[in-house]
Amino acid sequence: MGKKVANNTITAPRGFLAAGLHCGIKELGKPDLGLIVCPSGVIAAAVFTTNKIFAAPVTISRQHLKSRTVYGVAVNSGNANACTGPKGLSDAVKMCQVTASQLKVDPHRILVASTGIIGHALPIDKITSGIKVAAAKLSSSTSSGLAFAKAIMTTDTKPKQAVRRLRISGSKITIAAAVKGAGMIAPNMATTLCFITTDIAISKALLQKALKNAIGNSLNKLTVDGHQSTNDTAIILASGLAKNTIVTRQDARYKKFAAVLADLCDDLACQMAADAEGATRMFKVVVNSAATKAEARKCARSIAEYDLVKCAIHGSDPNWGRIISAAGSCGVKLNPRKLTCKIGNITVFRNGRPVKFNPKAVGRIIAAKQHTITVNLGAGKASDFCYGCDLSRQYVTINADYHT
Amino acid sequence: MGKKVANNTITAPRGFLAAGLHCGIKELGKPDLGLIVCPSGVIAAAVFTTNKIFAAPVTISRQHLKSRTVYGVAVNSGNANACTGPKGLSDAVKMCQVTASQLKVDPHRILVASTGIIGHALPIDKITSGIKVAAAKLSSSTSSGLAFAKAIMTTDTKPKQAVRRLRISGSKITIAAAVKGAGMIAPNMATTLCFITTDIAISKALLQKALKNAIGNSLNKLTVDGHQSTNDTAIILASGLAKNTIVTRQDARYKKFAAVLADLCDDLACQMAADAEGATRMFKVVVNSAATKAEARKCARSIAEYDLVKCAIHGSDPNWGRIISAAGSCGVKLNPRKLTCKIGNITVFRNGRPVKFNPKAVGRIIAAKQHTITVNLGAGKASDFCYGCDLSRQYVTINADYHT
Repeated sequence: MGKKVANNTITAPRGFLAAGLHCGIKELGKPDLGLIVCPSGVIAAAVFTTNKIFAAPVTISRQHLKSRTVYGVAVNSGNANACTGPKGLSDAVKMCQVTASQLKVDPHRILVASTGIIGHALPIDKITSGIKVAAAKLSSSTSSGLAFAKAIMTTDTKPKQAVRRLRISGSKITIAAAVKGAGMIAPNMATTLCFITTDIAISKALLQKALKNAIGNSLNKLTVDGHQSTNDTAIILASGLAKNTIVTRQDARYKKFAAVLADLCDDLACQMAADAEGATRMFKVVVNSAATKAEARKCARSIAEYDLVKCAIHGSDPNWGRIISAAGSCGVKLNPRKLTCKIGNITVFRNGRPVKFNPKAVGRIIAAKQHTITVNLGAGKASDFCYGCDLSRQYVTINADYHT
Repeated sequence: MGKKVANNTITAPRGFLAAGLHCGIKELGKPDLGLIVCPSGVIAAAVFTTNKIFAAPVTISRQHLKSRTVYGVAVNSGNANACTGPKGLSDAVKMCQVTASQLKVDPHRILVASTGIIGHALPIDKITSGIKVAAAKLSSSTSSGLAFAKAIMTTDTKPKQAVRRLRISGSKITIAAAVKGAGMIAPNMATTLCFITTDIAISKALLQKALKNAIGNSLNKLTVDGHQSTNDTAIILASGLAKNTIVTRQDARYKKFAAVLADLCDDLACQMAADAEGATRMFKVVVNSAATKAEARKCARSIAEYDLVKCAIHGSDPNWGRIISAAGSCGVKLNPRKLTCKIGNITVFRNGRPVKFNPKAVGRIIAAKQHTITVNLGAGKASDFCYGCDLSRQYVTINADYHT
């Protein structure tokens, strides 16, 4: 056999087919409709936005997740189907119905997701026609998986995918994912649209637990602009076709799967930060010696979404005063006499006092594709982190010119 | 007598002298040092930042406010004297000492404030020399008042002042103010540097009460970037030289004074919003039918500082979906079936459903110097508001290129 490039898309795990195409929502023929299908059925778990205003597809997917077996997900980009009233709900149902009729399954066994502009009715006829075409194109090829990843993009500049392979009791397991990122992203239970496929055999309860944990430590620790969308959805589908003895307890096998899933989601979060709207670089804020884990998380997030910090990072400026000001104003316990800040491995503020440092050396750290800011609050023993990205003129351009 | 333009600066109330000049902190000879003095003494009240990391001048002014009588305030711009350790404290004390020795009063009777970059030691010799020169230039002229207003500017493009005149029991009272604005501004107890002078005779307790109320409904309802500085200080000085019978009770005279002071502060807040860093326009978010006043305030502020709303306003784009998404994600009670949004006088979303509107007409409302967004949550009877400004590429330029 010749060399074969491994499938790195959501069709990599056994049992999954995908398709992605342009159905007519977006301009310029850009892909805007995607399907993921598992003809043999999957168990599914998901986490959704906690925004009190959530889109119609979120309502419908929450209902359909009650089904024991699910057969697929229909997704469109370019229109969020949010704030669209009763028509929005019936359109989301219709997306499930048309997909289901192509697959000859019950509509309640199809999930649905949308992303894009809020408050506009879906062009439902274009979408239903598109679903029929997509259903005919479903395949397990790498190109079909990639087509799906492209179909869910909004202001992303590239598709975001990840794949992980592991062995559980001798069975080869694959986990793969496609995610969209870019804007309106903040940590709060779930972020953006994220679709994960795997062939592990696992109970629904443990699949949900592993997903919630993985998202909580990855996509939920990424802030682009501090704003949670109406459509955030992360779905994992498990076909069970790896034929491992089903994982039903929180044993070593579960822990291994959960750890690899968490690692995959961390990879996705970093890809999203690096390709956030207008971003030229990403960073990680680590907060140590906080009074509680919740305060560490709050402080890390506050620093990561502080516009003045994001602008300074955009300018490669070691303006640590803004980091300290953000820590001081976010409402967490801190000891001003122990407060310390490092940029990369260079201490810029120690025990409440400025430290002499080489600003050019720190500027070079900040100018890299990725760096870490570490803040010690001197108030306890808890730590947490948050990913963020710089704030550029391009972010403003993208979001001022995105016309309704 | 010929026509005389009324003094509209902080030297307008009886008893006040001012000066402003360049002492050498800023480049290009820009004014960076100001004094306000009342040789006959004033009672003083103030509100300060609630940031846990506060600058040395905030510590010193808090102490000196315990004095029954105060004689003046020394202010520098271009350097915040924050996060500067023990040297910062001794520098702030020295600013009071040098000012006091010029006026031949006790140093504890001088207040001090600083604004500018965090974490750099003050060039204290330049400042003390500057104070001596400024003390020699003190005058009650309009030009001296204006020089002070210019000396406290940072990224402001113009000085911000306001004056109000009223009568209390036959006595003419004047209230005047100078404020700096521009960036690192958010509502939280006090905002920015704000200096108010008046000649009313009033008790210290009522002066403090009137100030706290006025700031709470004006400067504390303005968000430029959601970030509270380490140096926020609002000081009011009352000379008593209007010779009204002293106001010591919350009677009609107090209420009249408090209302005019609140109106003056509202004027300052609007000037700050209009001249915020990179801002091309301002807006007011009014939230009605909230469950509580606190929730109305929280929701109004969340919408006003939501980057995606600010970008849409910059682009004159009636993207109400972002307003609704901000309301939904800020954690306040709302009824999705009653949620309603108006831009100017045009309803764009009513009872949870989009409303057909003329986007060009709404775009024109947004493109004006000032407009109002009204959101009804349908959850109760409380209302509140917040001022905000658009987010422009220029904001990023200012804050990415402001090098340490």
